[in-house]
Amino acid sequence: MPHNDTPLLPNFLAGRWQTGSGHGTTLKDPVLGTPLVRVDNTGLDLAEGFHFARDTGGSALRALTYRQRAALLGEVVKVLQAHRDAYYEIATANCGTTKNDSAVDIDGGIFTLGTYAKQGEALGDAKCLLDGERIRMGKDPLFQTQHVLNPTRGVALFINAFNFPSWGLWEKAAPALLSGVPVIVKPATATAWLTQRMVKDVVDAGVLPAGALSVICGSSAHLMDQLQPFDVVSFTGSAETARLIRSHPAVAQRSVRCNIEADSLNSALLDPSATEGSEAFNLLVSEVVREITVKSGQKCTAIRRIFVPLELFDAAADAISAKLAKITVGNPRNEGVRMGALVSLEQKRSVLHGIEALCHEALVLHDGSETALVDADPTVSACVAPTLLGHRDPGQAKLLHEVEVFGPVATLMAYEDEDEAWDLIRRGEGSLVVSVYSEDPVFIARAAAELADSHGRVHAISPDVAASQTGHGNVMPMSLHGGPGRAGGGEELGGLRALGFYHRRSAVQASSAALDALAASGVPFKP
Amino acid sequence: MPHNDTPLLPNFLAGRWQTGSGHGTTLKDPVLGTPLVRVDNTGLDLAEGFHFARDTGGSALRALTYRQRAALLGEVVKVLQAHRDAYYEIATANCGTTKNDSAVDIDGGIFTLGTYAKQGEALGDAKCLLDGERIRMGKDPLFQTQHVLNPTRGVALFINAFNFPSWGLWEKAAPALLSGVPVIVKPATATAWLTQRMVKDVVDAGVLPAGALSVICGSSAHLMDQLQPFDVVSFTGSAETARLIRSHPAVAQRSVRCNIEADSLNSALLDPSATEGSEAFNLLVSEVVREITVKSGQKCTAIRRIFVPLELFDAAADAISAKLAKITVGNPRNEGVRMGALVSLEQKRSVLHGIEALCHEALVLHDGSETALVDADPTVSACVAPTLLGHRDPGQAKLLHEVEVFGPVATLMAYEDEDEAWDLIRRGEGSLVVSVYSEDPVFIARAAAELADSHGRVHAISPDVAASQTGHGNVMPMSLHGGPGRAGGGEELGGLRALGFYHRRSAVQASSAALDALAASGVPFKP
Repeated sequence: MPHNDTPLLPNFLAGRWQTGSGHGTTLKDPVLGTPLVRVDNTGLDLAEGFHFARDTGGSALRALTYRQRAALLGEVVKVLQAHRDAYYEIATANCGTTKNDSAVDIDGGIFTLGTYAKQGEALGDAKCLLDGERIRMGKDPLFQTQHVLNPTRGVALFINAFNFPSWGLWEKAAPALLSGVPVIVKPATATAWLTQRMVKDVVDAGVLPAGALSVICGSSAHLMDQLQPFDVVSFTGSAETARLIRSHPAVAQRSVRCNIEADSLNSALLDPSATEGSEAFNLLVSEVVREITVKSGQKCTAIRRIFVPLELFDAAADAISAKLAKITVGNPRNEGVRMGALVSLEQKRSVLHGIEALCHEALVLHDGSETALVDADPTVSACVAPTLLGHRDPGQAKLLHEVEVFGPVATLMAYEDEDEAWDLIRRGEGSLVVSVYSEDPVFIARAAAELADSHGRVHAISPDVAASQTGHGNVMPMSLHGGPGRAGGGEELGGLRALGFYHRRSAVQASSAALDALAASGVPFKP
Repeated sequence: MPHNDTPLLPNFLAGRWQTGSGHGTTLKDPVLGTPLVRVDNTGLDLAEGFHFARDTGGSALRALTYRQRAALLGEVVKVLQAHRDAYYEIATANCGTTKNDSAVDIDGGIFTLGTYAKQGEALGDAKCLLDGERIRMGKDPLFQTQHVLNPTRGVALFINAFNFPSWGLWEKAAPALLSGVPVIVKPATATAWLTQRMVKDVVDAGVLPAGALSVICGSSAHLMDQLQPFDVVSFTGSAETARLIRSHPAVAQRSVRCNIEADSLNSALLDPSATEGSEAFNLLVSEVVREITVKSGQKCTAIRRIFVPLELFDAAADAISAKLAKITVGNPRNEGVRMGALVSLEQKRSVLHGIEALCHEALVLHDGSETALVDADPTVSACVAPTLLGHRDPGQAKLLHEVEVFGPVATLMAYEDEDEAWDLIRRGEGSLVVSVYSEDPVFIARAAAELADSHGRVHAISPDVAASQTGHGNVMPMSLHGGPGRAGGGEELGGLRALGFYHRRSAVQASSAALDALAASGVPFKP
């Protein structure tokens, strides 16, 4: 099919729709291989667009109070809910996801927006956040210091990942817009359509001030060049691109604030005192299978390493494999299919190469390559069935702790005692999340104390919360999302904590009278 | 004098004193030009030293509670107080500072340590900080999230500036050690002696666990190469070195947390309604003169740009110049001298070149080059007398808002109205501090709202706080120190906020029973 038969999506920048002047890149259906839309931003005046967002969008947003901006988020929620069906169609076509998997992205994004609308409403009609109490600067109470947080007067650039075209936009845009900071999103090309369409619906509805929300699809070249000292950039994606972003003069020289979420070798840990078939054992097995299969393992939070006591290695291998064998993989339009495709043939190649690499160190406990696809052509589709690898002495392994294979793959690993478990988990060198499966609250607290510093989140599943726990891989807006080291060192969400990235902290040292006048426009910040 | 007659200072690394194997760099008296000591770290096994600090020092510190570590800070205070006279002697010889100026560095450092000892004591016998309240994850209160802050299990590397060999070490080491993170300090070579001597006294006294405090003098080559994902680096110095640090693979690739304090064109702003000789006017004049002259203007927080209403330009120029003319400059050993030397001939050259550059745009209102030195040879000493430059239409200037001349120099600038004042001050593109001089609390609050986002600190001086205000340039431990953009984007101090840099935040999602067990080892974090 010649390029010009495939619709070219316009970009929204400088308050108007602008079509790139190049041939563009074609987005495809990862199951059927058919072309869907094209994206391109060749020839756009980026400087004009960033300037417009920063000045026109920023001024308009900062003129509002937190409560007013929260109301805008509420309006965005309504717009998105009104077009929900269209988003599911795009997700099926462009992401190859089943309905349940599309929901994680689409409804997850809307839920996060709604949460910030609610939290922002509670901040009321203030324009800055009062950080902590006033502190005396000496014995005399007349001269004091009050820390305040004010919206940064710049633009927020999001360079996003392909796996969450909806949630990835809104989990960042909600706190940014609530903070009074205009957003420019550059979605990953493979799945840019859903992001572009959501922005289009919001723009068409006219609910946000001009310049508050822009979308640029296609290449990310020259975007970083536009960033000025008060701008911020938030990136989700590969460690290699993260390195380029952090080395860019905007960050290295102009001190543009930068949040990174990169690779992560997340872990699941079974209590050493667990036994085969115990509640903790069964909870681990279920959660692991869910994590391997949801969105075909294309979640930065997915479990990649599963740690069980050595004596339970075979039992866990059997139990997980048995469940994986029942997962139907193929065309998400077929109602019998539990797991759809990877996002592209490129990702399929990458995942298959990754599995091959890990197999230099690991055993194959459940081989996905033998699974027949449902309603999908294995030579055309980007479907990959779940695979379980294993290692009985993972202290000897290297790649297994370092290489994140971004698909339906995890490695079962044995440990001898608690201390070895901590050490092995730390071999990930910083991850987004570790989950702990135990019936013992004291063990859970000890695991949290040992592992919290190297994980942005510790998720503990005990029998009493089996029904209410929110899932190892689900990122909830009230909890921090991010992780140190290999995971990029970033912090997102965590309720109102997310506003910190879009505000600048300052200590105002002044007389009590001046601080009283300042406090009139502020609200105490209690994340 | 041949090199080997000048004592070579040993480094303290891997728990032992180690002398470099190179010729070393000679530190000199900036007034007399005489050699004092040499520093060198050639041939040191850096990997061993960082490993020892990280493992031996880190484990020992983390085994203690906040209260116990606070007690260690208290012991360090006692050691330093016992050797105070020696520090003043070193400062006079190596920094060329008068007694009053040495105090800012020496007693300022000890005061900051003492403040953290007190704040840490109040944290009690906890091992982690509980960040905010528990939050329900759903309707069911059984499963909740609790954010916690745990000490990072790495080393803190400080690459410090020449102007504060004492305070620069302790303002960073106090929160690091209190957090349970071992410290390796690399002082700026020109004034490394005082830092090395203070570390030596603390080591000799045996008050800190092995590996908790190390000092490396001389070149900073290869230090960054040692950093691992859970380490942190804090740098104070030039924007150019800051760029190198942020681009280094440790930061760009391994996500080592990095705090930067770089250049800053700090401002002073006189209320537009002020009149000649009014209280606000006089307060500005006094503070400006103090800021230009204290430590010969070698403070990152010193006032560089002074904004007054156009109609007060001449009056302010006259009043400031008259006071500057009375400042005696020369050998700090002479009791009649108010202002000593710059730190080195290199800095003298840099400052004189800087003044020359600014004079392409500015008028000279008070010419320091005509001032006779007291008891110092102008061809040998690094003394530079205070200079006031001026510009009546600073919107036309460029360098004046961009080039920080790190000496006794500031530029008086006129503004027409309030909005122009905000714009002109923002031309600094992010500064450490702006001070506001006004009798009107409402104006001060408005200035804070306009300027706080681009300044780490807003310092307001009104007549009622004339006696109790702590000074534009003085960094108090309870207030944030740092600034966005050109100032480097860092955050230091701010009371317990400083502990955040040395802790990792994590969301622990668990049953109430597990969170109860975790809370037993924590203390609520209320900065």
